[in-house]
Amino acid sequence: MGKKNAVYAQSGGVTSVINASAYGCIKAAQASGFIDAIYCGNDGINGVLEEKLIDVSRESPEAIEALRYTPSGAFGSARRKLQHVDEDRAHFERIVEVCDAHGIGYFFYNGGNDSMDTVKKLSDFAKASGYPLQVMGIPKTIDNDLPITDNSPGFGSVAKYNAVSMLEGSLDTESMHRDSTKVFVLETMGRHAGWIAAATGLATRSERDGPHLILLPEVPFDARKFLAAVEETVKRLGFCSVTVSEGARDAEGKFLSESGGTDAFGHVQLGGVGNTIQELVKGELKFKTHGAVLDYCQRSGRHVASAVDVAQAQACGERAVELAGEGMNGAMVTIQRDADDPYRWSLGHTDAGNIANQEKVLPPEYIREDGYHVTDAFRRYCLPLIEGEDYPPYREGLPAYVRMERPLVPAKLPAYEG
Amino acid sequence: MGKKNAVYAQSGGVTSVINASAYGCIKAAQASGFIDAIYCGNDGINGVLEEKLIDVSRESPEAIEALRYTPSGAFGSARRKLQHVDEDRAHFERIVEVCDAHGIGYFFYNGGNDSMDTVKKLSDFAKASGYPLQVMGIPKTIDNDLPITDNSPGFGSVAKYNAVSMLEGSLDTESMHRDSTKVFVLETMGRHAGWIAAATGLATRSERDGPHLILLPEVPFDARKFLAAVEETVKRLGFCSVTVSEGARDAEGKFLSESGGTDAFGHVQLGGVGNTIQELVKGELKFKTHGAVLDYCQRSGRHVASAVDVAQAQACGERAVELAGEGMNGAMVTIQRDADDPYRWSLGHTDAGNIANQEKVLPPEYIREDGYHVTDAFRRYCLPLIEGEDYPPYREGLPAYVRMERPLVPAKLPAYEG
Repeated sequence: MGKKNAVYAQSGGVTSVINASAYGCIKAAQASGFIDAIYCGNDGINGVLEEKLIDVSRESPEAIEALRYTPSGAFGSARRKLQHVDEDRAHFERIVEVCDAHGIGYFFYNGGNDSMDTVKKLSDFAKASGYPLQVMGIPKTIDNDLPITDNSPGFGSVAKYNAVSMLEGSLDTESMHRDSTKVFVLETMGRHAGWIAAATGLATRSERDGPHLILLPEVPFDARKFLAAVEETVKRLGFCSVTVSEGARDAEGKFLSESGGTDAFGHVQLGGVGNTIQELVKGELKFKTHGAVLDYCQRSGRHVASAVDVAQAQACGERAVELAGEGMNGAMVTIQRDADDPYRWSLGHTDAGNIANQEKVLPPEYIREDGYHVTDAFRRYCLPLIEGEDYPPYREGLPAYVRMERPLVPAKLPAYEG
Repeated sequence: MGKKNAVYAQSGGVTSVINASAYGCIKAAQASGFIDAIYCGNDGINGVLEEKLIDVSRESPEAIEALRYTPSGAFGSARRKLQHVDEDRAHFERIVEVCDAHGIGYFFYNGGNDSMDTVKKLSDFAKASGYPLQVMGIPKTIDNDLPITDNSPGFGSVAKYNAVSMLEGSLDTESMHRDSTKVFVLETMGRHAGWIAAATGLATRSERDGPHLILLPEVPFDARKFLAAVEETVKRLGFCSVTVSEGARDAEGKFLSESGGTDAFGHVQLGGVGNTIQELVKGELKFKTHGAVLDYCQRSGRHVASAVDVAQAQACGERAVELAGEGMNGAMVTIQRDADDPYRWSLGHTDAGNIANQEKVLPPEYIREDGYHVTDAFRRYCLPLIEGEDYPPYREGLPAYVRMERPLVPAKLPAYEG
């Protein structure tokens, strides 16, 4: 067969290591023998729709190498989700039209649940249209909520960042508790699943280590029970460190961050679930509190990335190319766990339809019986994922991250308003 | 002269490197030839008042070595401030009594402005009482607001942590801005001076690098001018990253975090100045915002400490012992800048009375004319302070920080209620 071009696009919330997947995909494509040019969608799928294709060959080799250790989406990401083909036919047609205009036979889509939905639909649409396009998914999500795959690139690093942050913030609180703050609250991301909040539990290696309590989306929040647990912890240790997931919710399934948090006590809240929890503790227990909301810093905290996560992200990008070379279409690369200790992993694949729009939440066996911490089974699962450090190079005291030039391939089609 | 014992105590808000000062002080004391045993106050000055003196010789050598890279106050810190001798005579008398009971002739106090006030008062009180006690100050504050000294141990690391966080959070926002967040707000510590917020300006190395706007306590906040600057930045770059100091205040000197933030527009706010700024931007400009509040994580973020800061913290601890050996009393070690580029520094000292209760704010020549960023002069000042990485060792994916055993010297005096 003749060589074809390929396009790679980033999708959804970015991570510390999505660019390592881009790096793996780009390098593998360039070395593949069956891909001619590889382009990147400028701002993800927007760039494909708008025929804004970044000409990777015109980025400097140094910039390409720096992708491996640069967080965020270096080519721009997108929150845009394609709907059902019947409702969104114009978009699907446009993508195929752009691919056709640029000789693109391979489409690598780097994202989470929604993106795998697109992989499946686009693959099916191209087949039905008779256009030869292989669409491959590369997994990415800090939320670790993709089914089938043992874990998702991006999660190991956000897990490590938050566990380190809890370790450090809790030590700080411990050393000040005599005259000052008694309760420290760390709010983590994870709207639908508690994987990130649970990962902070890795920092607990002795009774005094935070977090002492973890509030997970999987466990309905009970204010009185929680306050009793805080009070008991402060009585026992002098202080208490709490992790709360942004997805924490009450027995009715209402997010604490949206409920005004503490209806039972009448405090009015703004500013997220971490504040809700702080106000509850201050109001009811009269303890001085402090709280951290790491927000985007946690998912871009490449300076403290997990080496395992970086390696897996890169390998998933490479494997997507290899699988495309083997003729695969409409599938996502998966990570398989071969052993816990010492940790060994390998790569597999699954139909993208098995991933699309599914959410894997924390199973009960990973949650301690009282609902406020993790189990040894969770530690065995999660610990290998945060192992190893992979520091970026520094220049003048700061990580030497890269910003791509994003030179575009000349457009061949009329402008598109979609 | 015969050997005497010494006590070291930590004071005030802790830092990533205060334990490096403890390490320097302890190791220098043990090697000094004129100090017999060195004790540490358990929970700072509380431990001296209560005769809870930690017997450092019974801590493991491995734990002492780990102090160099463990954040927080490993022996406990205190927020307690001694008042004027006339009002607080009982406390001063008790300290001298405890020192006398334990053969203590040297008192090393590791803290900021308030602590240097104590150094001065305690030194004067002991002299007036005829008790031979040399009291020496070791500088420490993330706020960098001590006069005389060129900078304060703790600042370089919090500066680096926040600059890295802004760099990473802003890259994240940049990659998502097309379909998602337009404005990212990072709230930093620094209630009275803008040094920490200003330090994030080091991350700006090109027009697109955040922070695009820095809100400093030294520049009265003007909501309409600020909103116009945000709007212009989003128009020009597509997104805008803002650093706001917790000490930001309005023209009347009222903290934005306490004012409900935005009287001019009537939005009610809770949850700190970062939220205030976010709500203002959302409400007036209708931009999607995200915000991070790093809180204690920033001052305990030892995993990304500045190597220069670690070295200076340790050296200040060592130097305090040397100066005590030279007969000095009532003084604080200072850091002197000998050259900017390449950076060279040395140690000096000053009477603690020159430091006590003073606050060094950002001078006008460090603030850009429009008030929203820093100048090249600030960059020359601050850049050397964040230089170099000094990573802690890791174990199972997390920094191998230490918790001291804190074995106490047997008490000799009746219990004290003070």
